[in-house]
Amino acid sequence: MAAKPTPLSGYPELLPAQRFVETQVIAELSRVFELHGFANIETRAVEPLDQLLSKGETSKEVYVLRRLQEEEDGKDAGIGLHFDLTVPFARYVLENAGKLDFPFRRYQIQKVWRGERPQQGRFREFTQADIDVVGQGELPFHHDIEVARVMAEALAGLPIPRATLQINNRKILEGFYRGLGIEDPENVMRVVDKLDKIPAEKIAELLVTDAGSSQDQARAVLALAEIRTTDSSFVAAVEALGVSHPLLAEGLDELAQVIDGCQGIDGADVVADLRIARGLDYYTGTVFETRLAGYEQLGSICSGGRYDRLASDGKTTYPGVGISLGLSRVLVTLMGDGLTADRSVPSVVLVALADEETRAASDALATQLRGNGVPCEVAPMAQKFGKQIRYAERRGIPYVLFPANEAGEQPQLKDIRSGDQVAIDPATWTPPEHDVRPKVSTSSSNNEEK
Amino acid sequence: MAAKPTPLSGYPELLPAQRFVETQVIAELSRVFELHGFANIETRAVEPLDQLLSKGETSKEVYVLRRLQEEEDGKDAGIGLHFDLTVPFARYVLENAGKLDFPFRRYQIQKVWRGERPQQGRFREFTQADIDVVGQGELPFHHDIEVARVMAEALAGLPIPRATLQINNRKILEGFYRGLGIEDPENVMRVVDKLDKIPAEKIAELLVTDAGSSQDQARAVLALAEIRTTDSSFVAAVEALGVSHPLLAEGLDELAQVIDGCQGIDGADVVADLRIARGLDYYTGTVFETRLAGYEQLGSICSGGRYDRLASDGKTTYPGVGISLGLSRVLVTLMGDGLTADRSVPSVVLVALADEETRAASDALATQLRGNGVPCEVAPMAQKFGKQIRYAERRGIPYVLFPANEAGEQPQLKDIRSGDQVAIDPATWTPPEHDVRPKVSTSSSNNEEK
Repeated sequence: MAAKPTPLSGYPELLPAQRFVETQVIAELSRVFELHGFANIETRAVEPLDQLLSKGETSKEVYVLRRLQEEEDGKDAGIGLHFDLTVPFARYVLENAGKLDFPFRRYQIQKVWRGERPQQGRFREFTQADIDVVGQGELPFHHDIEVARVMAEALAGLPIPRATLQINNRKILEGFYRGLGIEDPENVMRVVDKLDKIPAEKIAELLVTDAGSSQDQARAVLALAEIRTTDSSFVAAVEALGVSHPLLAEGLDELAQVIDGCQGIDGADVVADLRIARGLDYYTGTVFETRLAGYEQLGSICSGGRYDRLASDGKTTYPGVGISLGLSRVLVTLMGDGLTADRSVPSVVLVALADEETRAASDALATQLRGNGVPCEVAPMAQKFGKQIRYAERRGIPYVLFPANEAGEQPQLKDIRSGDQVAIDPATWTPPEHDVRPKVSTSSSNNEEK
Repeated sequence: MAAKPTPLSGYPELLPAQRFVETQVIAELSRVFELHGFANIETRAVEPLDQLLSKGETSKEVYVLRRLQEEEDGKDAGIGLHFDLTVPFARYVLENAGKLDFPFRRYQIQKVWRGERPQQGRFREFTQADIDVVGQGELPFHHDIEVARVMAEALAGLPIPRATLQINNRKILEGFYRGLGIEDPENVMRVVDKLDKIPAEKIAELLVTDAGSSQDQARAVLALAEIRTTDSSFVAAVEALGVSHPLLAEGLDELAQVIDGCQGIDGADVVADLRIARGLDYYTGTVFETRLAGYEQLGSICSGGRYDRLASDGKTTYPGVGISLGLSRVLVTLMGDGLTADRSVPSVVLVALADEETRAASDALATQLRGNGVPCEVAPMAQKFGKQIRYAERRGIPYVLFPANEAGEQPQLKDIRSGDQVAIDPATWTPPEHDVRPKVSTSSSNNEEK
């Protein structure tokens, strides 16, 4: 490597302090998922191409693999990188159905790849964090509530702006549209799904011109889409529109159960939002989207829903409900605005080095600290102590431990933030709880507009 | 997906209980690496092809990426999947040199891909765990000791057979060969490197026929290769062979420092083994290999060394010392022999469900348990309690909590292994420490020969 390499567009990489934030976020997500009994799995990065291409919409984005030594005949290995975690999970469930216990709760936090044009919050390689519950043959509705609640609790614990889970139910939309006499609810859903990007008046026009609605139907469709409540009062608001249909009643009941079941989560909002449609996906009931306060331009950072047919082997069908968090989309964006950690190393203590001859003594102090679970490192060179303190400062290491000058003395521990220095017993000393791990911080510089 | 999919050869996947072992192993490795001040990073999965192909030896194994939509003109994206973590790390160091602090200690635990023919312990997708220390311009020798010690300590804490780190120093080999009057030490090293696979008599022949040695030189080369000590007594053993060279003396001193610095690690052996050569790699001093007791057929599971030129931007050179653990090679092999965990879910408690009408009460019990950090789940259906106990048993969940029948009563917690049942306060109960996490276990069935 002879010159400085340049970053590859769409493949974000993190500096050590930023990566610390990501590992802390992954640890916190895992903690919450496991508290709720979700087991972790990883699937291989590749799937057979025919699996990846069975959803037409995303086929353009797939990266195909070829072994270099097969160059001559140009033959592909017949595999490509997965573009989400749902296709591999469905395959994993079918492949291992005989060895899994259902309902099967799993979480999966892995990289995925899409060859799409890189832009803000859209990458070619990024990490997703998915939870799903999948049943064999059937899956009780209460798992819809569970999945919403678990993800809301997980988001509430992260060092990110406040998240709002927006929940709807396809049965409400389809039932309402059918109750209005609309024959092709799918078409209407697809138009309503654009409400984020296109003004309501224009949507009303499109409903008439593209989806075959009457003016009255279009007005009612938009009235439904405007309903958004933090509790189950949306039921009365929908009923006030005077449309009735058995599927609508079923959807209202289901959504009310989810919203009621997600009350009282500290640090995240859960709302019924009747404009959410997830137009292009294969959901059959509950649908989820999520917005981040101050980062609405990112779109939904966490989406999912109920699908009655996650997978099928011809005999048995596996229904599921799940939700997928776009971890890189959130974190890389927030890091661009200053989210980082206050240390670039895990070390809590730098053990100073008086001279190269006494390295063994400094090593022994470090070994004692590690015996108490205190991450530390020994100064790489016997520079002047002022330089060693600067070494710690540059890395955000809060303490420097100076070896004793004479036998019988205790080493001195300096908190380089306050300048306080005390004698300690390295065999028993542990740092205050707030110094054990690097702290997540937001440099205020770029963050004022948020 | 209409039929049961079949596994893809060379792409091992784990069941949830096995994956638990892997996550525990990764957590333990990370804990030890961080105790020693190593920061975690991840690099993107892809590198430019010219980087990947700059090492001729591995070029055949690279997977090249192509975006499917570029199919028509058959153009590659110019990138491929990384086949190790060293090439990406060297690139990361150069790309971010201005933002990193040196010496830079990093660990990296990621998947890598190689298109080679799958066989025992050799996969097309597998996880490696690397630690390296890299300096800017220079890197003091004590980091060689550090890297050996950290990896030995990390291996000692894993649920795997006893590991033996075999350490040598290229300067010993080159100095000894030069002291013998051998002009091309590289050639001799390459032959000696085959001592694992080829009998010593045959190696002696090859040294004469292929590496241009005399019979006497070949004898001395083999005598050196036979030296293997658990302490620094190898120095005297080498000196007894009567060869001298300044480089040999330097190498002996370095290796003695590493071996002395790695004394007293519980649970792993560190030996000086003068046959270790790492023939095909670009090491310049210390070299490491590692064997696992009872699994010698896997070859070295953990290898590395000192390279004076990990990377260079033309002006500055970055020397490094590092070691790479083939995590999948070890774990997938051990799992084939029965290594797993005693639970397929993280749940410690299954909260039983009397009937569907009281689900909210069971949910509330689960919420109380989670408030104490106790992973748990609520029974998915209100089956007979016997069936609910079976549900827990199948998953390895040790406890079932039965809601109180009447207000004022406490719920009853049953340890389904012993059958013991006691009333508990779910707001304060926590499990015994040994039940908090699934336990790693080895089913004895396939493991008797080890």
